[in-house]
Amino acid sequence: MPITPRLLLGPGPSTAHPRVLAALATPLVGHLDPQFLALMDEVQERLRRLFGTQNALTLPLSATGSAGMEACLVNLLEPGDAIVVGVAGVFGERMCDVAARAGARVTRVDAEWGTALSPDAMGDAIAKARPKAVAFVHAETSTGVLQPVEPIARAAKKAGALLILDCVTSLGGIPVTLDAWGVDAAYSGTQKCLSCPPGLSPVSFSPRAVESVLARKTKVQSWYLDVSMLARYYGGERVYHHTAPISMIYAIAEALRVVDEEGMPARAARHRAAAAALIEQLAPLGFTPLVAPEVRLPSLTTLRVPERVIAAGEAKLRRRLLDEHDIEVGGGLGKLAGSVWRVGLMGENATVESVTHLERALGQL
Amino acid sequence: MPITPRLLLGPGPSTAHPRVLAALATPLVGHLDPQFLALMDEVQERLRRLFGTQNALTLPLSATGSAGMEACLVNLLEPGDAIVVGVAGVFGERMCDVAARAGARVTRVDAEWGTALSPDAMGDAIAKARPKAVAFVHAETSTGVLQPVEPIARAAKKAGALLILDCVTSLGGIPVTLDAWGVDAAYSGTQKCLSCPPGLSPVSFSPRAVESVLARKTKVQSWYLDVSMLARYYGGERVYHHTAPISMIYAIAEALRVVDEEGMPARAARHRAAAAALIEQLAPLGFTPLVAPEVRLPSLTTLRVPERVIAAGEAKLRRRLLDEHDIEVGGGLGKLAGSVWRVGLMGENATVESVTHLERALGQL
Repeated sequence: MPITPRLLLGPGPSTAHPRVLAALATPLVGHLDPQFLALMDEVQERLRRLFGTQNALTLPLSATGSAGMEACLVNLLEPGDAIVVGVAGVFGERMCDVAARAGARVTRVDAEWGTALSPDAMGDAIAKARPKAVAFVHAETSTGVLQPVEPIARAAKKAGALLILDCVTSLGGIPVTLDAWGVDAAYSGTQKCLSCPPGLSPVSFSPRAVESVLARKTKVQSWYLDVSMLARYYGGERVYHHTAPISMIYAIAEALRVVDEEGMPARAARHRAAAAALIEQLAPLGFTPLVAPEVRLPSLTTLRVPERVIAAGEAKLRRRLLDEHDIEVGGGLGKLAGSVWRVGLMGENATVESVTHLERALGQL
Repeated sequence: MPITPRLLLGPGPSTAHPRVLAALATPLVGHLDPQFLALMDEVQERLRRLFGTQNALTLPLSATGSAGMEACLVNLLEPGDAIVVGVAGVFGERMCDVAARAGARVTRVDAEWGTALSPDAMGDAIAKARPKAVAFVHAETSTGVLQPVEPIARAAKKAGALLILDCVTSLGGIPVTLDAWGVDAAYSGTQKCLSCPPGLSPVSFSPRAVESVLARKTKVQSWYLDVSMLARYYGGERVYHHTAPISMIYAIAEALRVVDEEGMPARAARHRAAAAALIEQLAPLGFTPLVAPEVRLPSLTTLRVPERVIAAGEAKLRRRLLDEHDIEVGGGLGKLAGSVWRVGLMGENATVESVTHLERALGQL
């Protein structure tokens, strides 16, 4: 495949680990092969550790992170159910759209893009709506904000609501502790801090969330994402539901081994150090962080682009970075399009070397 | 990845082509990288050729074949819409379940498992229900029946209904000609006759189907599978929807090149020859085909298991084939469990050599 490799410093995919790429090329076996089932068990156990949970229903969903979002929402919501969604970027917006398509009554609590959600505003909305579920994004990929989880989790718990958390850009780069936080359903993607190709969505459902699914009055609207059926394959009965994506399971197995070998404390420290280096090294070039230090996401940094770059066309500069230096960085999404860059230092790329490559390339443009 | 390779002669996945496995290990690029977009264009063009269609909206969906089924049904059906589904196996049953979850009024037309649908029965049901859509399975993986498409397509056309066709086990092994047949929406999988790993679902929507989606009164219930949004990325605008599964797109690109190099006439002849050899070579061992010759599927053959094997436990024999000879064959699904084997000779494995391996191994058990 004649593809020029890139240093992937955008919002994802990140560069995959060489061991993960090698795992992808492993010959296929069947989805009921004992070798494959043992590997799936290993993947589920490693995902539990990484999610910080004992949840039995923890598995790599056979689609990308956006399908993980949909799985959490459509399993836990029935038509007419109320949900409170925190919206501080594209992915919070998306949650509202997905929840509405499931027939839910959505109360949205907005925060300015680039800031965190207000726990008070969320708490007030939760107290008022008494929703079945509360949902928000842990690490908002469109803004680079790391949302503190605990205060909103407390408000959800107080109201007896199920808590749904988007961990797409946090899992594997930032500590995630679902059980300690009291999260009932979470989803992630493989192509961010796990340094694995896109294509799977790790998800986890608490026993309380599973009870809620089993107590539904209506069938889950998505057959493909119905976790009550998925549980019969991934839970050990091995009842056929769909054909698992074998090669991608090889890839995530290897990616999770790499994560466990490093250990999350070291990995999280590496992500923080790389992000700090990025801000420091790009400051002389006029790039300044959009997000306040206390809620700044290490794995993805949103940088305000200097005026001279905006004037010259920031998209052109990104294209030159790609064409002339084989470095990808991301543009802004939604309201932030044209005024910021999103620089992902995720997984294998969360290094000072990545930052130095980018700084040197920018210096030559 | 310490995995013992197998000769995959079950209902899928089939053994992936070595070139496809090599393509999987290609370093990642971004989903908006010009190199990747060019590759995506190539994949879409090759899929059009293979599906026998000019449909612009032809793309590899980022999930497995079952999600392709769901995509076709949930995009074309709104709550209250009528659909006639032909049911002659597990996958026809599944269509009914998925359509009902979309709120459709489902009329099912059953045929005995192992036989084809009756065009007269389908025609009568269509004339009576005047449905918005008609759906059935081209190649029923649970029974090994190849359904003649034309007579049912004529009845659907006469009633002005949209025609939905499951091509999971036909695409790449048997000629598929959506436009000539008048099919409006079709889906397939990668892990059968394309000899590519599971994880993607090639789908195709006719201009009439797209019009129907755009004219909906309600939003498509699945955000992830909403083709009106997918069309904005795959159609050339490149509007971000979800992160495409890069590595699997490398894989399908290479798999489709392999298919095109061989050409469908030669490929279809190879599948037919392998299936004929299977029936001939296993007859002396007491295995007899379930399906009548005129509707027998070449890519997947359902064989009645001899009484002595049923008595000894057919599952045990399959397990010994796997453990002692590294050959996987499939058991029966649903009503056929315990009494038949499903032998897939798909893609790279559609050879007389595969059959000889299986025959020799069975002789040693």
